[in-house]
Amino acid sequence: MNIDMIEAAARRISGHARRTPLLSSPFLDEIAGRRVLVKAEPLQHTGSFKFRGAWSAVSALDPEVRAKGVIAFSSGNHAQGVAYAAKLHGVPAVIVMPEDAPRLKIANTRGFGAEVVLYDRANEDRDEIGARLAEERGLTLIKPFDEPQVIAGQGTCGLEIAEQAAEMGIGEADVLVCCGGGGLTSGIALAFEAHAPGLRARPVEPEGFDDTARSLAAGRIERNARMTGSLCDAIVTPQPGELTFPIMHRLCGPGLSVSDEEALRAMAAAFLRLKLVVEPGGAVALAAALFRPKAVEGDTVIAVCSGGNVDPALFREVLERFG
Amino acid sequence: MNIDMIEAAARRISGHARRTPLLSSPFLDEIAGRRVLVKAEPLQHTGSFKFRGAWSAVSALDPEVRAKGVIAFSSGNHAQGVAYAAKLHGVPAVIVMPEDAPRLKIANTRGFGAEVVLYDRANEDRDEIGARLAEERGLTLIKPFDEPQVIAGQGTCGLEIAEQAAEMGIGEADVLVCCGGGGLTSGIALAFEAHAPGLRARPVEPEGFDDTARSLAAGRIERNARMTGSLCDAIVTPQPGELTFPIMHRLCGPGLSVSDEEALRAMAAAFLRLKLVVEPGGAVALAAALFRPKAVEGDTVIAVCSGGNVDPALFREVLERFG
Repeated sequence: MNIDMIEAAARRISGHARRTPLLSSPFLDEIAGRRVLVKAEPLQHTGSFKFRGAWSAVSALDPEVRAKGVIAFSSGNHAQGVAYAAKLHGVPAVIVMPEDAPRLKIANTRGFGAEVVLYDRANEDRDEIGARLAEERGLTLIKPFDEPQVIAGQGTCGLEIAEQAAEMGIGEADVLVCCGGGGLTSGIALAFEAHAPGLRARPVEPEGFDDTARSLAAGRIERNARMTGSLCDAIVTPQPGELTFPIMHRLCGPGLSVSDEEALRAMAAAFLRLKLVVEPGGAVALAAALFRPKAVEGDTVIAVCSGGNVDPALFREVLERFG
Repeated sequence: MNIDMIEAAARRISGHARRTPLLSSPFLDEIAGRRVLVKAEPLQHTGSFKFRGAWSAVSALDPEVRAKGVIAFSSGNHAQGVAYAAKLHGVPAVIVMPEDAPRLKIANTRGFGAEVVLYDRANEDRDEIGARLAEERGLTLIKPFDEPQVIAGQGTCGLEIAEQAAEMGIGEADVLVCCGGGGLTSGIALAFEAHAPGLRARPVEPEGFDDTARSLAAGRIERNARMTGSLCDAIVTPQPGELTFPIMHRLCGPGLSVSDEEALRAMAAAFLRLKLVVEPGGAVALAAALFRPKAVEGDTVIAVCSGGNVDPALFREVLERFG
């Protein structure tokens, strides 16, 4: 896993993923007490950065292998990214989801061209179903974060931030990244190591689900005590990845965490001030930039808003409470 | 009023206004029956294209004149654009607003650095107040659309669309533009005349307030019968401008109009599929692209979403009804 893989992913992705803008507002600067720049990944295809890693992984496959198709386990942003990347490559995608997944997510994944295979969480084994389908059809599994070509794809977001910061004359800044398994955070950190050594990637997690922050502090992988109970469930994983953790441990600054309410307040701020739709898990980095100013260093902070696939009912609640 | 003025405005605006992205989603393509590209002006500074015209006008002033400050009459997007453009130039801005304007708009305009002067609609004359202030302080009036440097600034949006369409290999398309007084539509049309003759600008208005469409059809300026009663009130003007109408008459395709409900549905689609916040008046062009496919020509349609400054309560209603 190195910068060459990220640069190769950037060449493969060029013209296919969007170079998302860095947004800003004087109102956000005032809340944070410093300049805030927001990398707007909700504007990426499929509404999250996950399209980058999915495109990178699908495009890196040998054409004959790719033609047989890909498979992923996900009910969320990774599923949509893999589905659409496969569709644009003209190859089949199978997404394995629990049958109680939200109907909208199932419909969206189908809308991006995938075959959705539902399973019964109580009585069926997801991995067994996936392994059988993969073998029967010759499908390649695209893992959500602990996969070099996926990390390389997420790293293209870091290359863009490095370029955009340089264009603005920003040499040093904390770059706050919404962190689940660490694919995005580690990819961005590798990009900065090579191209913007003054930028420091720092993972941000929901309070109570800060496995990465604790792992970084302890110097070894620690697990979350539980997996449920956060509105930011899209970025709750059992633990940092086996591939991503060593990269984050070597390159990243200390982790931060924010409350669910702070994430919702950041969503309202992004609505009001940036005209950007952000999901709870995609808003934790902006929340830390806005509401944890003492934990951040420097005159400028960059926050990566990682996704915008939020249920309309929850978004209404956010606007009612904080809009 | 010519292309040289637009290109000069583009040079002055470079590095200050955002080059907003062209967004897309396969879900929108499916609704429209053709490829839909959305120019995302809600991501512009102050949340609408108005910042372009305001920056252009303020930056074109003689420095000694500019130093005395600028004045505008507006309770909406033009006010915020002028306020912020003046602030970034380090010169005073006075915005004259009715005292019953929404508090949020007053607060936002002040937040962008302007002095807000309120007047009593029933008993005071706005123009008289403005003229007195302008004379006392040497302020320059920045009109919202019928002003060459404002049209030139809005035209920079057209230059960007021309470039972005060329990058994507699009030589011919209808470009639907939310139209009030016609500053944005006429500026875009002039940019296309010089740089993308296969792109055709077409104004889109709220049903019942289609003064521009009727004026284009009649070949002379026609007025709206009334000024109130549309949710898209931000783009309701009495009639097309004296400067903008001849340009639109020479260069634009026929106008379109959509219902308030179609505009709200387009807002919901932009939320769900583009993660973009759009206000009702800023959504009429997207609504026409999605819901009036027979009125549009070609394989690709480009819709300019012009602004995103929408009240959270109205946005909640949109999500409840159509999300």
